[in-house]
Amino acid sequence: MPKTPVIGIADTMFARADMGSLAEQTIRREAPQAIIYRVTVPGIKDLPVACKRLLEARKCHIVVALGMPGKMPIDQQCAHEASLGIQWAQLMTNKHVLEVFVHEGEGKNDQDLAEVMRNRTIKHAVNAVKLLTDPGWLRERAGTGQRQGRANARPLKL
Amino acid sequence: MPKTPVIGIADTMFARADMGSLAEQTIRREAPQAIIYRVTVPGIKDLPVACKRLLEARKCHIVVALGMPGKMPIDQQCAHEASLGIQWAQLMTNKHVLEVFVHEGEGKNDQDLAEVMRNRTIKHAVNAVKLLTDPGWLRERAGTGQRQGRANARPLKL
Amino acid sequence: MPKTPVIGIADTMFARADMGSLAEQTIRREAPQAIIYRVTVPGIKDLPVACKRLLEARKCHIVVALGMPGKMPIDQQCAHEASLGIQWAQLMTNKHVLEVFVHEGEGKNDQDLAEVMRNRTIKHAVNAVKLLTDPGWLRERAGTGQRQGRANARPLKL
Amino acid sequence: MPKTPVIGIADTMFARADMGSLAEQTIRREAPQAIIYRVTVPGIKDLPVACKRLLEARKCHIVVALGMPGKMPIDQQCAHEASLGIQWAQLMTNKHVLEVFVHEGEGKNDQDLAEVMRNRTIKHAVNAVKLLTDPGWLRERAGTGQRQGRANARPLKL
Amino acid sequence: MPKTPVIGIADTMFARADMGSLAEQTIRREAPQAIIYRVTVPGIKDLPVACKRLLEARKCHIVVALGMPGKMPIDQQCAHEASLGIQWAQLMTNKHVLEVFVHEGEGKNDQDLAEVMRNRTIKHAVNAVKLLTDPGWLRERAGTGQRQGRANARPLKL
Repeated sequence: MPKTPVIGIADTMFARADMGSLAEQTIRREAPQAIIYRVTVPGIKDLPVACKRLLEARKCHIVVALGMPGKMPIDQQCAHEASLGIQWAQLMTNKHVLEVFVHEGEGKNDQDLAEVMRNRTIKHAVNAVKLLTDPGWLRERAGTGQRQGRANARPLKL
Repeated sequence: MPKTPVIGIADTMFARADMGSLAEQTIRREAPQAIIYRVTVPGIKDLPVACKRLLEARKCHIVVALGMPGKMPIDQQCAHEASLGIQWAQLMTNKHVLEVFVHEGEGKNDQDLAEVMRNRTIKHAVNAVKLLTDPGWLRERAGTGQRQGRANARPLKL
Repeated sequence: MPKTPVIGIADTMFARADMGSLAEQTIRREAPQAIIYRVTVPGIKDLPVACKRLLEARKCHIVVALGMPGKMPIDQQCAHEASLGIQWAQLMTNKHVLEVFVHEGEGKNDQDLAEVMRNRTIKHAVNAVKLLTDPGWLRERAGTGQRQGRANARPLKL
Repeated sequence: MPKTPVIGIADTMFARADMGSLAEQTIRREAPQAIIYRVTVPGIKDLPVACKRLLEARKCHIVVALGMPGKMPIDQQCAHEASLGIQWAQLMTNKHVLEVFVHEGEGKNDQDLAEVMRNRTIKHAVNAVKLLTDPGWLRERAGTGQRQGRANARPLKL
Repeated sequence: MPKTPVIGIADTMFARADMGSLAEQTIRREAPQAIIYRVTVPGIKDLPVACKRLLEARKCHIVVALGMPGKMPIDQQCAHEASLGIQWAQLMTNKHVLEVFVHEGEGKNDQDLAEVMRNRTIKHAVNAVKLLTDPGWLRERAGTGQRQGRANARPLKL
């Protein structure tokens, strides 16, 4: 566990709401001692290398990557390419990147979409802080149906 | 074959049942001499780098990665991305990661879903121990239709 | 921020309009001090390695990759392969490649298609210059629904 | 061409017939001087790293990877992930891995399925030996519609 | 630009016509000074590592990879895997591999299929020589709708 957590935030101009600032506020509240670096790129396919640069050049311990895939079929493919890029960025650096993607089509309307963005951004910003400073917090919730963006799922007994 | 097997377990908060603890119990029973490291991450897309860290920083000889993809179409894509990440993690470390994914839609109902999770988790935890300590056990079962999660398939003569 | 920005342009013979020259003019206007290297390859699947060579052999700080996937189903798959290649090229070099792909089927007719190509090429050429020389310009536009090729989307409050 | 060919065989417990033993017999008949290493893993997604270990730790010159994807839609995705893993294993080692995958749904019935498995296994085991010891044998058959598993296709004149 | 171009040709036994020999003749005619290395592999999924070996062990400056994906749905997936492998082979070596894939289902009949194979093979063999010896030739054709296999597309003004 790092003494001073260094946390990166990468977001996009494409997204229809400023999830990056919300992630920043959440991290400041959860980990006031953290150093935060933030970069904004055009769209989700520009996120993977931006994350890798934060992890390497800025020596971030973890990055939160926020983006909003559009609602056309091609946008699903772009999200898939961005997600694979984020996988490689993590494996090449041995550090976590928490992907906070909210698909434009996920919301029933603009208000609902904003609610999903808010919920998922806050929960994953908390997850990033916990992964870095309190892994036992995640361990206690193993297999309990935690969801980001919507209500949690019902846990089952094995 | 390592004298003291070091086995990693990576699981998620997203899954609706605690497959990680069941894997842990099974490994303790099958290989009481093993050292076990366990980490919990938010969801399946966080598993690949968690596995790679277990294999490298913790020097695990093998990892069991447990997760539950949700039932929406996008969840299939996430599972695919996580699986590709797990492929790379293995190839970059030359070690096995046994993927124990149970799709939320696989069960006919909650009880059946729990049964699939239980069966697949136990069988793959045993497979992990055997791969590490008794590869001949797998060799004897080559091409015999072994299944994890459901009953075995009928073997054919060539 | 580099004193003298070195910007690469990679385009194709396959595309039905000369987006490369338009990108070149835009960059010359936005960053008269920039050094520009340009290469043309047969089709989009030849772009990733062309970009990587510009980033490494030519020491470009950033590359704009312009291409036009055709309208057959197989062309979508080719675009996907090219995009994944561009992801890897970026992650292997830690530098951005802005992908300017205009799908042949995106336009309602030839005039509309040309308009999308013009709009997306100019906006992404500007983005490339800004990423290199003025990252705050992108930061100010975080989460504001910026689009390339079409009109911007309506931003939401979180 | 190596003096003593070292050939790896990787197969699975999941497959419904013992293709590994048939590959082994075929290689012994075609290249009695060869050294053969064989490993068995649970399923097809465990093959790529198994192949890479055979190529590196066992110094195999080539590997034959045998597996049987199941008949559910998810099994197609697993086969795709395994195939991509095998691509990387080859590129990371600069050696060939011949993939012998027989999809459970390929056969009209069990007898036909066994026939496809037999035919494809034997032909690819021969291909592996030829690639290593007699590349001219393949060169003579370039563009002649050779098939493994079924009858050859009709060649065309260019 | 290399004094003596070294050009690789990789083709398959699976393809229904000998595109490799046609590529060879075309290169000999376009670049009589070139050194040519040719290898034949079983199918398209064996091409990526064959290309990488030509680029590294044989020190080829460029490779032309010729193959014919079959007409079953699974063949599309194989082509996709081969194409991704070719992307990585290029990025790992910083050299171009021109992919000349003709899908068996592309032709209206055998004669038409042969015509597509002939046209695409010759045009891409010329492209390979030009990329190596005369990049300005491609630059002059940027954005002009050049096609391989069929007639060129109509260019648009931007």
